[in-house]
Formats: sequence, structure tokens, C-alpha cells
Amino acid sequence: MELVSENRAFGGTHSRYSHASATVNCDMTFAVFLPPFASADNPVPVLYWLSGLTCNDENFMQKAGAMKLAAQLGMAIVAPDTSPRGDHVADVDSYDMGKGAGFYVNATQSPYAEHYQMYDYVTKELPALIEREFPVTRERAISGHSMGGHGALVIALRNPKQYVSVSAFSPVANPVNCPWGKQAFSAYLGDNEQDWRGYDASVLLAEKQHYIPMLVEQGRSDQFLTEQLKPEALISAAQQSDTQLTLNMHEGYDHSYFFIASFIDEHLQFHAANLGLI
Amino acid sequence: MELVSENRAFGGTHSRYSHASATVNCDMTFAVFLPPFASADNPVPVLYWLSGLTCNDENFMQKAGAMKLAAQLGMAIVAPDTSPRGDHVADVDSYDMGKGAGFYVNATQSPYAEHYQMYDYVTKELPALIEREFPVTRERAISGHSMGGHGALVIALRNPKQYVSVSAFSPVANPVNCPWGKQAFSAYLGDNEQDWRGYDASVLLAEKQHYIPMLVEQGRSDQFLTEQLKPEALISAAQQSDTQLTLNMHEGYDHSYFFIASFIDEHLQFHAANLGLI
Repeated sequence: MELVSENRAFGGTHSRYSHASATVNCDMTFAVFLPPFASADNPVPVLYWLSGLTCNDENFMQKAGAMKLAAQLGMAIVAPDTSPRGDHVADVDSYDMGKGAGFYVNATQSPYAEHYQMYDYVTKELPALIEREFPVTRERAISGHSMGGHGALVIALRNPKQYVSVSAFSPVANPVNCPWGKQAFSAYLGDNEQDWRGYDASVLLAEKQHYIPMLVEQGRSDQFLTEQLKPEALISAAQQSDTQLTLNMHEGYDHSYFFIASFIDEHLQFHAANLGLI
Repeated sequence: MELVSENRAFGGTHSRYSHASATVNCDMTFAVFLPPFASADNPVPVLYWLSGLTCNDENFMQKAGAMKLAAQLGMAIVAPDTSPRGDHVADVDSYDMGKGAGFYVNATQSPYAEHYQMYDYVTKELPALIEREFPVTRERAISGHSMGGHGALVIALRNPKQYVSVSAFSPVANPVNCPWGKQAFSAYLGDNEQDWRGYDASVLLAEKQHYIPMLVEQGRSDQFLTEQLKPEALISAAQQSDTQLTLNMHEGYDHSYFFIASFIDEHLQFHAANLGLI
């Protein structure tokens, strides 16, 4: 693990690290914010943040305005990249496929299977690395935006013992039924739509009652709302399985980081409450 | 004036506008954040933010995390660009000269004089436009970072009746004595160093006692501290003229937006107090 950069922020530290990932078979960069007073004697829980299409580990740390409250709450934040990277990694000339668009799945199809194993990277290799190298507990929460909101919901619904709570901003809520999801899942998982269902939050949510605390934020002026995001699928699914879901719709807000920044503190408070920090 | 983009943020609005500027003789883009409930019947004061080298109107709005508290305080924020723009504007292949590096002066030298009139743009044309087009009062505060911290200090020291308070992060405090300032001032103002002195905060501060409330933040791990920023010149100048100056030095902080974000709320509170908002 190699330090890429380090900035003091809000009494804590924002750092970027690079490491050779065995899971995705390339070098990966991630960012970590450690609040003040985090130490081996005072380990802190971790909020994992999964970013959306075109992003890397930097967007959330620079634009969300999350560090001030995270510092006060005593919560670390870890932001991984959104796909494998490097010249040898398969890619297409498109913002919503290939690099920057890993969709947090384990690809089974050529040419993506060799590196696009983001589900295993985010659920296994990365937390193991974080918990070995940083002064953190094994208490984890997870959140994300858009493609990363999809990733966070899927990961938490499939691994409820590994995360105390999950939240999402503007998630791709039903990817098997939207253009972004259909394109990515065909390429990464193949043409059998049955194989897609394990990566669809609405499908997973409908299957059985879930108990993990879940909070979703969505802007009504989001340019992707109707065609790509489909939050109504989450609502139907939660009703079908009698699962508790809080989904807040916000008049006038769009898909940008200005929306995330506007409500990130409520999500930090939600996770902090579930992590026992408040 | 043409709307470039608009985002709802913290119950208010973040917008970018383009307009044909007579002062700098080209189209200019600026960003404005209006807090909730700002209206013709409830006009709000304005904090002007001047950005540093390589920046435009977007950096502060995306990275400083200032809008949350500005929304609560009822304060508008206006962020202009850092230079004239366009294919016809003189430029050099350098991050610290030409476009993105206007240094908030009125250039007198060819080929810069035609467009590089940023001092007049920021002190006259822009506030007049803002006060005509938006629900704001004529109460103004000013702040900025690095080159923009220099700009804010110079502008406030020269126009104390136009601004109720001034603050700066990591300002270029004594540009007549540092490489950035010498390079820019020679090119924009010519070789007579007497002509530079009206654009140097430390020179202005030393000349006479000033009464405008002034707050400066500086990181001790700032990579530009010794060679370019020279905050000690501000301290000497304030002592010489018996002017009140608060300059906070922060262990471990660097020149980045992570530093600005860490302390921006204290600066908003400082300006809000001087604007009578709290």
C-alpha cells in the first residue's frame, strides 16, 4: 500500500492510497478520511462510499462536504474507485461502460471478467485491507450515489451482517429495467437476465423481508429519474416484502453533488445512530 | 446576462451566469449562491469570493462546503472567474500567468491591457450587475484564496467603504516580493516597481492605520508558504500601521481546498457578524 497524497482536514486526515489488488488484478486507488483522535486505542467505525459513473475516489471527498460532521461524529470514510484501472484493463469509449463504470458486479464475460470484479473488491478485499492498515473497528456502514447507490443497496441487502446500515442518493434502483443497467449487465454478466437479478436492489428487496436500516434520498428534478433511476421500483419492492424503507423525495433537486451535499449530514447522522456513535 | 446552469442546493439556488463584460471586454462567467427566502422583499448581503491560480467560478462552489452555513445565515455568495477568457484573450502557456491568473489588477501593458482589467471588474462592474439583477443588499464582504486572498485584501484595503469585512486563506501577502507577484506584475503593470505597490496588501497595510475587520487563515504545511505567500509581511505591516489583524496559523494544513473547507465556517461567521446577520 503506497501513500499517494495526504491533506489535513477538519482536524483529521484525508489520504489517498494505491495498492495492488489481487481481486481486480490491477493497481487500485482509494481515499480515506480519518477523524481526529482515531488511533489503535480508539478505533472508529467506517462509512464506505461508492461513487457514480465517471467518478473515482476523489469526487466525494472533494465535493460532498461530509468531513466536518464525520470528524465530529468520529467516523472514518472510505471511498474506493468505481472500476479497475490501467492501460491493460478492457474499456469502451463510453461514460457508462468500462472504466469508471464497474457497476459493483463480478463480471463473468470476456473481456471484462479478468478485472471487473468490483463486488468482491468492495465487499471483501478493500474492507480487509482497511481493517488491517487503519485504526478502525469492524463496524461498517455503506452509502453511495447513482451507480454507487445501486452498489450500496445491493451489497447491504446481500450482506446484512457486514453492514449496520445502508443509504443511497439517487440510486439506480432497478438496473435490470433501465438502459444503464441493461447495457452494463449484458456486457459484464451475459445475456441471461436471471444472472442479473442478484445485482438489482429492487429484485433483492422484493424477495424477502429485510431488516437492515435503509435510507434513500432522491431529487424530483433529477435528469435521470424516469428513465434510469426508477425509485418507485424500490417502493413497490419494499411493500411486497414488508420491509421498512425511508425514501425522501426532494422538490427541485437534481443529480449533482449539490444535492448530495445538501443532505449528506442527515445520512451521516443516520449511520452514526446505527453505529452507536450518537 | 444568460443562465448557464442552475442547481438547487441547501434550500437555496446555485447558478452560473454568463455576461458580456464591458470592463474586461469579453464574456465572463460567474457563480452565485442565493440562500433560501432571498427575495426582493428580503434582500440579503453578499460575500464575494476570489479564487486562486488556475481556478474559475466553480472551484469554491463545489469544494469549499460553504453553502450550508451561508444558507442558514442568509448570505449570498458570488464567485467570479479569475481572469478574462476567450480565444482572443492574450495568454501564455503557464499556470501562473495569463488566463486563470489575472491577479485582480488593471493591466497597463501590452498585450494584457485590452482584457486584464480584473480589479475594475471585481470592484465595479460585477457588484453593480449583481445588485441590479439579484435580490441582494449593497452590503458586501470579500474573501479569497491564495491569488484571490491577495485580491480580497488589496480590494478591501483600497475600498473600505465598499466592504464591511475582509478575510483571506493562504493569501499572496506581499506579491512585490515573491516570484508569482513579480512575474505577474512585471507583465501586467510594467517594470516600474512603484506601480506595483497599490496591488500589494502588505504595502497598503503598512501605509496607514486601517479599520476594516480583517481575518487571515494560513496552514503551516502550505507548500507555497515561504517562497510565495509570506504572511509575516502582513504581520509586520499591521504592526507598523497599528492596524488590527487576526492571522491564524494552523499546524499541518496545506494549500488545498481541504484547508479552506476546514475553516470556511469561521470566516462565514466572521463576515456574518460584521454584516449584522448574527
